[in-house]
Order: sequence, then structure tokens, then C-alpha cells
Amino acid sequence: MSLRGLGLDLRCRCIETESRKIGKLIESVELFPPSSHCKDTEIIATLKGTGKEICLDTSAPWVKKVIEKILANQKP
Amino acid sequence: MSLRGLGLDLRCRCIETESRKIGKLIESVELFPPSSHCKDTEIIATLKGTGKEICLDTSAPWVKKVIEKILANQKP
Repeated sequence: MSLRGLGLDLRCRCIETESRKIGKLIESVELFPPSSHCKDTEIIATLKGTGKEICLDTSAPWVKKVIEKILANQKP
Repeated sequence: MSLRGLGLDLRCRCIETESRKIGKLIESVELFPPSSHCKDTEIIATLKGTGKEICLDTSAPWVKKVIEKILANQKP
């Protein structure tokens, strides 16, 4: 189990966010609501193939659209 | 890196989904769009404290509301 799984994160995970529209490269998206350790929601995408994790801009319209598409059972 | 990170999942992750409204227990939510290995979107919540992972019903209104709240920078 990761430190994250144990609730041991002590600060925000994201320092900077990806501004390019990388929806097509996304394999999965993880959402972290505000918590005692980070006051803002964080969104981390895992990329296809490499498994690389990238922070997304929670206020970017394209990010919201990607999540809406996934919820509508479509590929981003 | 997990098998998931290497893109080695060969089928859907979720067999059954949680029907109770467990929004308050959620630490994070991961969204998996449809892929060649699973035709439907899957949503897996990680619970506070235990880190236990639970599949959510992608068509449940409360699940969509939880995600909308997180996107709006609120706790679910």
C-alpha cells in the first residue's frame, strides 16, 4: 500500500499543471478532493503506454470536458 | 509500476458496484474510460483511512454529483 493509501500525504501533489490538451493520451484520471493537506482539488492523469502521471488544470474547460466524456461512457 | 500502469489490464476491473451513497467516505476517485479491454467506463473510489478501493456505479446520479463537487473544488 502506498503512503497515499494510508492517508499520509502532507501537502498538495501538484506543483505545476499541463496546459496542452492531452485528452487523447489519457488512460485514466484520478481526482483528489480538497483535504486538510491540500485546499484545492487535484486532478492527475495517467498516460497511455508510459503510465506517466501528469497534473491537469482543474479549471481548464478541456479537462472538465474530458471527465464529462468519460462519465458519458466515451473515450476522451 | 503496477500492471495497470503498464497497460496490461486484460479485462474490466469492476465486477460489482457499491450502491450506497458513500460520498463522505471518499478520499479520491479514479476514472477509467472505455478501452479495448473494457467497453464501459469504470469508476473506482479509494476510501479514507483504510485506502480500500470500491467500484462505483457510473450511471448513479449521486456518483456524478460527487465528481461534480470535486471538480467544483468542494469535498464530496
